[in-house]
Amino acid sequence: MRRFAADDLGEAGAEISLGVDVAKHVRVVRLEAGTEVELFDGRGGRARAELLGDGRARILERLPDAPRTGPVLMLGLTKLPACELALRVATELGARDVHLVVAERSVVRSLAPNKTARLERIVREAARQSERAQVPDLYEPAPLPEVLDRCEGSARMVAWARAGDPVAALAAEGWIAIGPEGGWTDEELARFDAAGFRRVAIARHVVRADTAVAAALALAIA
Amino acid sequence: MRRFAADDLGEAGAEISLGVDVAKHVRVVRLEAGTEVELFDGRGGRARAELLGDGRARILERLPDAPRTGPVLMLGLTKLPACELALRVATELGARDVHLVVAERSVVRSLAPNKTARLERIVREAARQSERAQVPDLYEPAPLPEVLDRCEGSARMVAWARAGDPVAALAAEGWIAIGPEGGWTDEELARFDAAGFRRVAIARHVVRADTAVAAALALAIA
Repeated sequence: MRRFAADDLGEAGAEISLGVDVAKHVRVVRLEAGTEVELFDGRGGRARAELLGDGRARILERLPDAPRTGPVLMLGLTKLPACELALRVATELGARDVHLVVAERSVVRSLAPNKTARLERIVREAARQSERAQVPDLYEPAPLPEVLDRCEGSARMVAWARAGDPVAALAAEGWIAIGPEGGWTDEELARFDAAGFRRVAIARHVVRADTAVAAALALAIA
Repeated sequence: MRRFAADDLGEAGAEISLGVDVAKHVRVVRLEAGTEVELFDGRGGRARAELLGDGRARILERLPDAPRTGPVLMLGLTKLPACELALRVATELGARDVHLVVAERSVVRSLAPNKTARLERIVREAARQSERAQVPDLYEPAPLPEVLDRCEGSARMVAWARAGDPVAALAAEGWIAIGPEGGWTDEELARFDAAGFRRVAIARHVVRADTAVAAALALAIA
């Protein structure tokens, strides 16, 4: 069944308007009135619905909410273009949430409100395009100790280029920390050690932050 | 030992000039004359060398050539920005070579010489930045049957979004085919079947080409 984003689902029987983009998408792929589709609201809500034509749909049945699953990404703040790319890739590959860290080697140290809004928009748009029922939460940049205090569960990994051969698999529901350009410092690695993080290699060569994010999440969800 | 790119290595005892970029890099990381480093030429050649200062180095010993290893990527031609990103990521993650395919859903159908040169430059630069001893060869766009005829070995996988759960590991030395935006058509998938390719999922959600490349190669090299 085709899946489409919808801002609000409503209860069974409700008639709703699909957004302009979705209505256009429905026309482009030539789905006729009467076709059944799945709608998702990005907050876990899902519904079976029937297209009515003219960008409208009728909710047939609410489906069980999508669970919040996937690895949690802790990402050293990088320059904005790399950060945007990393967030897009993380969302596509199923990160549950992303916590930004002001790392010692972070060149960018804070985000203006309009930059934060831009990053949130990129995450929302990536979730919609990859047809994810849940949009990851993006946590504003904070110092490492503060982010480490938020960790739950025992599956905790920090990417470290000198950890040896790339690991074959990471924990699907754990925390994964990827450093900024230049990587984590020794002091930061010691903090990760103290917080119970295992050092893992995720690539054979030196890779950029977005590539590291993609590799780590691919290994976690496989 | 720190690693740096050098255009030509020469034999033991030879004094060589490091490139302008490398000389600058050496200054930035404050390596003094007398420091031993490893140099690589991007064609597999490697040498142990001693920095002499002023952007020069003396070759101490030629090392065994780096073997040509890693998965071979077959990539459906996409729009240029996505293609550039995919090639950069593929190079960072250790693709041995990349064969571009003019797929049925490829919007871009050919590359002007200046575009090919640009893509080759991106691959070379990514190899240098990730300190790879071998620069992957980039094969110009060709129709799928022609590219399939080049395949060697029996480890052959084609990424297909509906193949089920993401696989835990791909073959490290095999061929991996990633489609263009919109994916492979049924006719193309039948050709892959006939050529002995196994259909594999590499992500849970819909992902862009560069993300698919990153995920597939991460799974192959782990």
